[in-house]
Amino acid sequence: MALEAFEKLVACLARLPGIGRRSAERMAVRLVRDPDGLGRELQSVLEESRRTLRPCQWCGAVTTSDQQPCRLCTDPRRDGRLVCVVEEPNDIAVIERSGAFYGRYHALMGKLSPMRGEGVRHLRLQGLLERLDREPIEEVILATSTDVEGDATASLVAEALKGRAVRVSRLALGLPVSSGVAYADPVTLQRAIKGRNVF
Amino acid sequence: MALEAFEKLVACLARLPGIGRRSAERMAVRLVRDPDGLGRELQSVLEESRRTLRPCQWCGAVTTSDQQPCRLCTDPRRDGRLVCVVEEPNDIAVIERSGAFYGRYHALMGKLSPMRGEGVRHLRLQGLLERLDREPIEEVILATSTDVEGDATASLVAEALKGRAVRVSRLALGLPVSSGVAYADPVTLQRAIKGRNVF
Repeated sequence: MALEAFEKLVACLARLPGIGRRSAERMAVRLVRDPDGLGRELQSVLEESRRTLRPCQWCGAVTTSDQQPCRLCTDPRRDGRLVCVVEEPNDIAVIERSGAFYGRYHALMGKLSPMRGEGVRHLRLQGLLERLDREPIEEVILATSTDVEGDATASLVAEALKGRAVRVSRLALGLPVSSGVAYADPVTLQRAIKGRNVF
Repeated sequence: MALEAFEKLVACLARLPGIGRRSAERMAVRLVRDPDGLGRELQSVLEESRRTLRPCQWCGAVTTSDQQPCRLCTDPRRDGRLVCVVEEPNDIAVIERSGAFYGRYHALMGKLSPMRGEGVRHLRLQGLLERLDREPIEEVILATSTDVEGDATASLVAEALKGRAVRVSRLALGLPVSSGVAYADPVTLQRAIKGRNVF
């Protein structure tokens, strides 16, 4: 079929996280029409990225093949006693931008997702256990998502850490800032009340 | 800087329509980690698409260089008296899937957007006027978006068609199906009331 290439491009883009069929079509049209060379640029930068970038062998963050382990893992100013466990490497960038954390990270590269057939063996859990033996870790902060899959993943990691001389904690649940009770779903509200702070 | 390639990849992806910084990061991580070869596949399919695909010289839909004009434009079963004017080629796919239209299309390749410095000269308006001279068009249906920019674009096209022996219409505004008054914004509600249908 003549438009096979377009269909393949849409199918590829729709496999990216958070991208549905319609967004993929919109993106594909933009890349094919290409009034400003974005398609060519993406193609070449994708090639360069795939050639030079690798996950950090310790934490899983994006780094280069000649920077192993990554800067975050080797920065002596960071507190090696704290490790924040996230699902994906991009979660690290979000936390870094908040400026609220100064420890190290560990990306699981996913979460438990029976729906997508992703189980324990898909997670970088063994690497975390090995780090506990090697690094001066005192607390593991679980920053998995707050849905059923993230909850299950957090439980799994907590379970795996049982018996280790390490504190395990999880990010607080509650109202997001600049919001209010009127916008909260019942479960968030329950957690916000349960975890209320005394003035 | 070592992670330059990653930054460039994120910047490229963030230029795609509807993609913000965080989505771009998530997509970039997925493409770099690449457990299933998606990055390589996207790279090669992007190359193939850019090499083989071209906009239809009549309607602007995505087609190949050797299928000019496109299938929709040359399909004798379609009603050549009706032309639906859309902003982007991907709008055509959405309307086609609805099965509610059996005429031809014309993609403007954008809309009036003073904020982004896009004016009349960015739109494929001249091509539409030429089609009116050449094709048996009796009605032009404006299917631009229902925001200020889409309204302005519709007005512009309607203005350009003045004096031509052609009916100009625009898609109905109202409540979307499977919704209700409780979820409608005031402007939609005003339009739904104004355009109410008698039983």
